[in-house]
Amino acid sequence: MQFHHYGYVSEEPKRLPAAGIGLNRPEELPDEMDVLIVGTGPAGMIAAAQLSMFPDVHTRIIERREGRLELGQADGIQSRSVETFQAFNFANEIMEEAFDLTEMSFWNPDPENPENIIRTARPLDDEHGISEFPHLIVNQARVLDYFARYMKQSPSRMTPDYGWEFVDLQIADNPENEEYPVTVQLKQLGAGEGSTRTVRAKYVVGSDGARSGVREAIGRKLDGKQANHAWGVMDVLADTNFPDIRTKCAIHSKAGSILHIPREGGYLFRMYVDLGEVRADDNHAVRKTPLEDVIAKANEIVNPYFVDVKDVAWHSIYEVGHRLVDSFHDLPDDAPADAIPHVFLTGDACHTHSAKAGQGMNVSMQDGFNIGWKLGQVASGTAPAALLRTYHSERHPAAENLINFDREWSTLMATPPEELDDPTAVETYYVAAEEFAAGMLTEYSDNMIMGDTTHQDLATGFPVGRRFKSHPAMRRCDANKKHIGHEHDADGRWRIYAFADAPAPGADSKLGSWAEWMQHDPQSPLRRFTPEDGDDNAVFDIKVIYQQHYHDYDLFDAPEVFLPRVGPYRLQNLENVWSSLHDDDFFNARGISREGAIVVVRPDQYVSAVLPLDDTAALKELFDGALLEPRPAAAVQA
Amino acid sequence: MQFHHYGYVSEEPKRLPAAGIGLNRPEELPDEMDVLIVGTGPAGMIAAAQLSMFPDVHTRIIERREGRLELGQADGIQSRSVETFQAFNFANEIMEEAFDLTEMSFWNPDPENPENIIRTARPLDDEHGISEFPHLIVNQARVLDYFARYMKQSPSRMTPDYGWEFVDLQIADNPENEEYPVTVQLKQLGAGEGSTRTVRAKYVVGSDGARSGVREAIGRKLDGKQANHAWGVMDVLADTNFPDIRTKCAIHSKAGSILHIPREGGYLFRMYVDLGEVRADDNHAVRKTPLEDVIAKANEIVNPYFVDVKDVAWHSIYEVGHRLVDSFHDLPDDAPADAIPHVFLTGDACHTHSAKAGQGMNVSMQDGFNIGWKLGQVASGTAPAALLRTYHSERHPAAENLINFDREWSTLMATPPEELDDPTAVETYYVAAEEFAAGMLTEYSDNMIMGDTTHQDLATGFPVGRRFKSHPAMRRCDANKKHIGHEHDADGRWRIYAFADAPAPGADSKLGSWAEWMQHDPQSPLRRFTPEDGDDNAVFDIKVIYQQHYHDYDLFDAPEVFLPRVGPYRLQNLENVWSSLHDDDFFNARGISREGAIVVVRPDQYVSAVLPLDDTAALKELFDGALLEPRPAAAVQA
Repeated sequence: MQFHHYGYVSEEPKRLPAAGIGLNRPEELPDEMDVLIVGTGPAGMIAAAQLSMFPDVHTRIIERREGRLELGQADGIQSRSVETFQAFNFANEIMEEAFDLTEMSFWNPDPENPENIIRTARPLDDEHGISEFPHLIVNQARVLDYFARYMKQSPSRMTPDYGWEFVDLQIADNPENEEYPVTVQLKQLGAGEGSTRTVRAKYVVGSDGARSGVREAIGRKLDGKQANHAWGVMDVLADTNFPDIRTKCAIHSKAGSILHIPREGGYLFRMYVDLGEVRADDNHAVRKTPLEDVIAKANEIVNPYFVDVKDVAWHSIYEVGHRLVDSFHDLPDDAPADAIPHVFLTGDACHTHSAKAGQGMNVSMQDGFNIGWKLGQVASGTAPAALLRTYHSERHPAAENLINFDREWSTLMATPPEELDDPTAVETYYVAAEEFAAGMLTEYSDNMIMGDTTHQDLATGFPVGRRFKSHPAMRRCDANKKHIGHEHDADGRWRIYAFADAPAPGADSKLGSWAEWMQHDPQSPLRRFTPEDGDDNAVFDIKVIYQQHYHDYDLFDAPEVFLPRVGPYRLQNLENVWSSLHDDDFFNARGISREGAIVVVRPDQYVSAVLPLDDTAALKELFDGALLEPRPAAAVQA
Repeated sequence: MQFHHYGYVSEEPKRLPAAGIGLNRPEELPDEMDVLIVGTGPAGMIAAAQLSMFPDVHTRIIERREGRLELGQADGIQSRSVETFQAFNFANEIMEEAFDLTEMSFWNPDPENPENIIRTARPLDDEHGISEFPHLIVNQARVLDYFARYMKQSPSRMTPDYGWEFVDLQIADNPENEEYPVTVQLKQLGAGEGSTRTVRAKYVVGSDGARSGVREAIGRKLDGKQANHAWGVMDVLADTNFPDIRTKCAIHSKAGSILHIPREGGYLFRMYVDLGEVRADDNHAVRKTPLEDVIAKANEIVNPYFVDVKDVAWHSIYEVGHRLVDSFHDLPDDAPADAIPHVFLTGDACHTHSAKAGQGMNVSMQDGFNIGWKLGQVASGTAPAALLRTYHSERHPAAENLINFDREWSTLMATPPEELDDPTAVETYYVAAEEFAAGMLTEYSDNMIMGDTTHQDLATGFPVGRRFKSHPAMRRCDANKKHIGHEHDADGRWRIYAFADAPAPGADSKLGSWAEWMQHDPQSPLRRFTPEDGDDNAVFDIKVIYQQHYHDYDLFDAPEVFLPRVGPYRLQNLENVWSSLHDDDFFNARGISREGAIVVVRPDQYVSAVLPLDDTAALKELFDGALLEPRPAAAVQA
């Protein structure tokens, strides 16, 4: 965490200096704004938190409720989400309070006494070391709290606008001719009940859930053939003799099945009690299932154990099917190639599925993270508006994969054990699917911000299109061994990791030539896209990783491009020079060539390109279409 | 972290439910209170934070300043302090923002060119793995902020009373006859400037610094022969080419010496520039040394490097000698053996010394932690008042050791390199002194709350009198591998670790007999001292550590004493059953006998006793004098 360089910070350093809209942010919802986000669920909040780091962009996020979410809803946090929380500076804090899920138990009927369940398997949750971050369970409300704190402490000083309901929106016929092409009707709830407002925005993000009004307004639909499935879900405190009450369990018995999830704090747990497929003519009658019936059924399922419920914090009956929206934005399918979308959908507004794999909140947050930085860069003039078309093209396939995975998993989970060909099919699938379930198999393919895989062999551990998998390294300036990926804050900046070739720091090398080009050549993205009056690292955060032991050279042996000057005193940022650890070699661990490599990482932590140190032309080309020059071309020539 | 068991906690779980004084705490300083702490430095704040966990005790902490400390003062946090912060629930947060000190550089004149300095050694800061916690550097103001948050979130909802100056105090002639035997005169500063108040307290803690008014009021004196030494200290931002600017350095050159300390945030650093011994007739003239002279001298010392200071956050010239108070409390030396002290001194009010070893804030906090829980237990009626006499007897020797250490270290640091017999004497001493400097060699000897070392061989890694050195283990209920010592919150409870003998959980064993005795025998401390109407673990937090792999038994195989019932629903706390790790065996790592052992740990994390599982009489005896029974003896017999 860096601070003090803009002046001494006496209090909480996570509270950044106010800037832009944050210097005088209107408390009331204004008539016009750059971005309007509808809904404060996980997708909307992460998008808002990301946009709050662009203080020149006026973003508002509205919510029907009159205040924060208090309980209920989702609770599964895959490790990819915790990685993401690290970028929003709250991974450690939420890890402290969340339930840490390390293994899963499978319970099935005892073959010798089929009325009773017995434990049949107990695989680790992350057998393969997919991430250094844990798989957590914590109430969604707390995730939202942390995002709310992040935006409040951001330079924008953003807070949600509670008590506003989305009614409708219209997009101007020629949106490119208007400054605020989207007109939105809102209705006030609570204190100002009933009054309506019309506001205008450059862009609207619909994060308003499975029954999204924004989706309806742009004429998009959730499609899916499969029937709804019903669940009784309850967050409870109980006296029990079930030995795995603090372990995630898939329980199948003669009496039905339960997905059992221990929760934060050591006592609370959630049970999803399977109520079966909903008949076509049910007409939501299942929702009237009394809580007592759900509790009684849970006790039948866990026989010979008991669950004596003492307190119910929250419960619900819900029905859900596997459905996917036809498009993540407002552009018609036959829109011209250069048309720009202005309304986007995220999260449950795009995809609904079972809770069985604990995916929903996680995939939704990746939607929001993806659209967040893109809107931030476009609305602040850093990137061309065409960038916004990559949102649908990247996230729609991710949602398709999610629906397919969840359909398989929930079908398997719902199959009575005696009908399975292989009695261990469920746990086998679970272990095989770990990497997907952890959120690590999302892969973005070639588009305007993605390189191809021509040079993938230079860094086989950083597949282009996948999230950057961190590794520990030694920070030269202060001999701090740290996960280098954890330095990647959600500040909207691109990351460039320069893995050095073998010569010593300071000696002639490909790394040295690359650094020289990057810092001085008028064609380098650093020269072209960094505003003259800001920090040297305002757009690109560039780190070098040397192969040498950190005691074998001195800090200032590194080229100056890795020591950028920042802040009012033009101090050098000294934290970008790193060494591979000799007892945990970065180059070996991630398959980095000893000839060096450039790894380019997007603001949302996805690997954009792997390039040779000497292919500066490819690096130039990558950013040609991805960023806008802040200065007239003439100035660059000078 | 445990929560939800007293009812669903929707917001920040570190904010505990209000209780006792916290239900209706008066905002204004009251006329009478249980404990009055004077001064909000590290010693006073940790004592207040500890007392805030005793909501039946009304504690106030006053401060001359009108608000929080903003900058300056101490910044060195040894690993023992970070262990302590873990007990106050903010170790992880402060670790995120602090500078992490992993190695130290020693710079001395270049033999070939003595006008220039060169690096001569670079030892690790913790060569010997003294603690799993780091050595940190962070402004004292932030430490105080975290303690302030802790007390605010405690059941007492405590906040400091700012703007009150201590004037004088008197202790009643027969204090045992009075409810509030200490009368204190205070003066209001700031808004209510000049008005005076007289308040009365059961106990007063003087944490009011080197010029302590409380010390003067009880007639105690700082003694010490050594002359004062002067330092120019500055927290600055600078442009520099000194390669170790982000490493702690001891720099000796022809031009003088510097202790250089990188600070939190990546840019700020502190330099202590040695201004030499202060002449007896100096009359504080040294304090007029201009900042420019200090900066110029720093540049001379670091030659051939430069330090171009761009911004000065704080600077000071200070003079300090090695001085120690004659007693840590108000009792005269000839007081009867059963007399009870009512006024206590902590921190700089008791001991002053150089800043060179970064000890001051740390030792002061251990003073405050020590007196805090003792006052809490005595004032709440849990422990007899005689406990308070152990404060002086434990902390005075600790302060003596500190002064002796600091005198040696600062003398060595101040000796010109050419006068040292061994040119590596400074770094050699530094490495040898690591364990002391980290705060780990404090050792309390036999007194009313300490056992002797008769059975030390049953747990050689837990020396009686030293702080409990944590080790990782597997928590059975949820397969969470955790440092067991990190579960020790500063909640004023005693900890008992029952290391099991070899038989399997549930089988006949010494552990099983001990558990049976502890839970059911009328003579067991658990039965005698636990109030009937509270949680089963209100006074003793008891954990078992089995030798078996955690998959080799089930949670409920453990005896019920390890599954205490708590909260309004009488739910079982399931987190006290642990297993040694097979790849990092607890018994081997801490020299625990395979026959098992009981390790008793005080509320301030010091090992009180090591006992055999079958010596229940010794365990009974240990607590006979240390705690008071909450119920009439008749009820216990029943």
